[in-house]
Amino acid sequence: MNFNKEAFQKLTAIVGENYIFTDAETLMHFGHDETEDLSFPPQVVIKPANAQEISEILKISNQYKIPTTPIGARTGLSGGALSIYGGIGLSLERLNKILEIDENNLQVVVEPAVITQVLREAVAEKGLFYPVDPSSMGSCWIGGNVAENSGGARAVKYGVTKDYVLNLEVVLPTGDIIWTGANTLKNSTGYNLTQLMVGSEGTLGVITKIVLKLIPQNKHNVLLLVPFYKAEQACEAVSAIFRAGIVPSALEFMERDAIDWAIKFLDGISVDIRPDHQAHLLIEVDGNYPDVLMIEAEKILGVVEQFEIDEVLFADTDEQKNALWKMRRGVAEAVKSNSIYKEEDTVVPRYELPTLLKGIKDIGNKYGFQSVCYGHAGDGNLHVNIIKGHMKNDNWQIEVPKGIREIFELTVSLKGTLSGEHGIGLVQKNYMDIAFSKVHLELLERIKAIFDPNNILNPGKIFPDEL
Amino acid sequence: MNFNKEAFQKLTAIVGENYIFTDAETLMHFGHDETEDLSFPPQVVIKPANAQEISEILKISNQYKIPTTPIGARTGLSGGALSIYGGIGLSLERLNKILEIDENNLQVVVEPAVITQVLREAVAEKGLFYPVDPSSMGSCWIGGNVAENSGGARAVKYGVTKDYVLNLEVVLPTGDIIWTGANTLKNSTGYNLTQLMVGSEGTLGVITKIVLKLIPQNKHNVLLLVPFYKAEQACEAVSAIFRAGIVPSALEFMERDAIDWAIKFLDGISVDIRPDHQAHLLIEVDGNYPDVLMIEAEKILGVVEQFEIDEVLFADTDEQKNALWKMRRGVAEAVKSNSIYKEEDTVVPRYELPTLLKGIKDIGNKYGFQSVCYGHAGDGNLHVNIIKGHMKNDNWQIEVPKGIREIFELTVSLKGTLSGEHGIGLVQKNYMDIAFSKVHLELLERIKAIFDPNNILNPGKIFPDEL
Repeated sequence: MNFNKEAFQKLTAIVGENYIFTDAETLMHFGHDETEDLSFPPQVVIKPANAQEISEILKISNQYKIPTTPIGARTGLSGGALSIYGGIGLSLERLNKILEIDENNLQVVVEPAVITQVLREAVAEKGLFYPVDPSSMGSCWIGGNVAENSGGARAVKYGVTKDYVLNLEVVLPTGDIIWTGANTLKNSTGYNLTQLMVGSEGTLGVITKIVLKLIPQNKHNVLLLVPFYKAEQACEAVSAIFRAGIVPSALEFMERDAIDWAIKFLDGISVDIRPDHQAHLLIEVDGNYPDVLMIEAEKILGVVEQFEIDEVLFADTDEQKNALWKMRRGVAEAVKSNSIYKEEDTVVPRYELPTLLKGIKDIGNKYGFQSVCYGHAGDGNLHVNIIKGHMKNDNWQIEVPKGIREIFELTVSLKGTLSGEHGIGLVQKNYMDIAFSKVHLELLERIKAIFDPNNILNPGKIFPDEL
Repeated sequence: MNFNKEAFQKLTAIVGENYIFTDAETLMHFGHDETEDLSFPPQVVIKPANAQEISEILKISNQYKIPTTPIGARTGLSGGALSIYGGIGLSLERLNKILEIDENNLQVVVEPAVITQVLREAVAEKGLFYPVDPSSMGSCWIGGNVAENSGGARAVKYGVTKDYVLNLEVVLPTGDIIWTGANTLKNSTGYNLTQLMVGSEGTLGVITKIVLKLIPQNKHNVLLLVPFYKAEQACEAVSAIFRAGIVPSALEFMERDAIDWAIKFLDGISVDIRPDHQAHLLIEVDGNYPDVLMIEAEKILGVVEQFEIDEVLFADTDEQKNALWKMRRGVAEAVKSNSIYKEEDTVVPRYELPTLLKGIKDIGNKYGFQSVCYGHAGDGNLHVNIIKGHMKNDNWQIEVPKGIREIFELTVSLKGTLSGEHGIGLVQKNYMDIAFSKVHLELLERIKAIFDPNNILNPGKIFPDEL
């Protein structure tokens, strides 16, 4: 399909010819994110300067019915930023400023294309803390975090992106610009459009300004690595820690294979992993009082020692802590470097983790695939990496999706759901019927239609192909 | 308007004749809440047993186009549960069970008509904590808290109702029954219907089951009462405490008059209030380690001593603490017992509190009304009680609304909004244009129309009479 020439001219007039692209290299660049090996290049890439230009672009998109996909840092894991119908790729890269760090109100106003880690460091300089730390925080953008309702390792204590978003400036698909709420910690004023927008994966509007709550920064932390002889016992220990009255600031689970691959993939990691360690928990507590942290660490030891564990590693120095976190954060990339893969972002109430893990392995055996599991166990959020390895293409394309469907059916039967923090995007959308009734999905679709009557903004995402 | 006889027969068949009422006493009883002296009785009161019966009732409401208003504990402060168009008053009182306290996952499943304090005490017996504590928690219901997104004194550290709601069973206005989400701490699976439902004031559905997150209970707290010679300095101190890196578990502001009236109204409160104390802050820190709490209390003292204060009262004993909290929680009733009043639930970023307080007093002077202000200062949430006293009826009906409009204009100009925790309901709806553009309000109205095409569920709330 050729791109409408008249529309192209109008778009060029909006952003100027330096900010509109049709060369193959740029289109290919914006055609992929971190989801499998998928490639869906847009026909045109536009890089608007501000909300006003985005508003004008979306009016053109409506006039000419051009599919328009907001594109962030392209670190997404569900294909949310892929231009599956071509059309316009709307890169937000020029909206990249931290507009205000408000130390009086503990808030920050930020544009979407600020790297999450850059934001965290900027507020940390003022003694403030933005706790949400997706594994990709060194490269992902805060706008994408809001669009996908990203989590990360500290969500277990501090919550996910949605818990910090106070207010959003949004360009609606119609081109209207609104603020969704107010810059307040409490708000009971009309329907919560802010929370409707968070996690809507760029289908309800283009986020152009974000007001985030900040909190005072804790000064100290203690990090423990606990090796378990049995993976399911590691999962059981997760719930036991909370029942003992402790809220760790991180509680991460890694299966044996995950840690092995991370160590192979990354340089300079030296952790003593024995062949009979089936899984590890990485457990952090944080606070302002080192004595209290030691008491809490002792309590955690008391809990995990009730299971079959090997010697616990206390990370004392920043160097050790960084090495362990580098290992944990490197798992995803390490596993994926190894083979073609599919990643599912299952989430259940945390006590159900052992049942989920066992179920995933059984399903893998039934359909003939290997999986490597790791994730934010404190939240019940288990990333399931299904490895192609030497599997035949036919099996990969036909049998594996059946297995994934069974994994999600299991997840939902445990009162969990399809995605904890990656979003549904493109690759999970045809499993949505497992989590939701037809009535429910139709309601969501009608909400989409209110915001976007011509279905021009990020079409083909979230909703199953057939209802 | 007479109630349709055929509809009445069908409704009787659904709930049985013991649970449908048309006697004047019952209708009057269900015609008021705690909002001013308003009275809007329904024509029929129905007390369904469960979601299925509610579903059948709502289908009748649709068939005969009968306005249907969900009614909880009638402790609301914005008139959300008033049957302003008559019709059916849908009392949820029979859905009053705590269905499951899940100690493994730190969750509780509860029906809407459980008194919030009863819920808090039931989970506390298991060592668990549901932190949201509206001042009315001894009589309000958890369902109403969800409908209005209630806050309370501990919101400053622990968040409001929305921060604890994981999943809801809802009867949609069409009669369909859905669960909005999953019982998980993280969820990036489709639009966040859970958060759209929270705070929607019974206009988008009838909540029949609530899954709440719980947290481990902190064992200790310290409570300070700080008398300020200048009310605006008390407001300034609020922001300064957070900037010093402390997150109190409560930070309450009371103007002089509020405390005076509470002391007069309540028996057995003996707090030494001097005539030159203009305002007080009630400050609590909580945690598991008494030594740490003393350090934090000392830090707070260090902050407040930078302002003009009198001697700080340390509440040591449970008796003293309870007396102070009784005083704080009694303020609303005390002030209201004194005169006809209107209460506004303003909220701003907390650093703007001194500006808001000064502005309210100036506006009061301009329009000739007295106001008594108190509230959850840590959240920037100031309850403004406008006292009729000896004001003439004409002024009360004509001048005061102009003043309220100016107060809300000020609030919004400070990046705040109309309601922090009471909801918009009936009495604030005609101020919604101050907070939202026409485009925004139309979007909210279209969302309402998707859920409730015949506008039968709690009509006449939230949306202004004229857009």
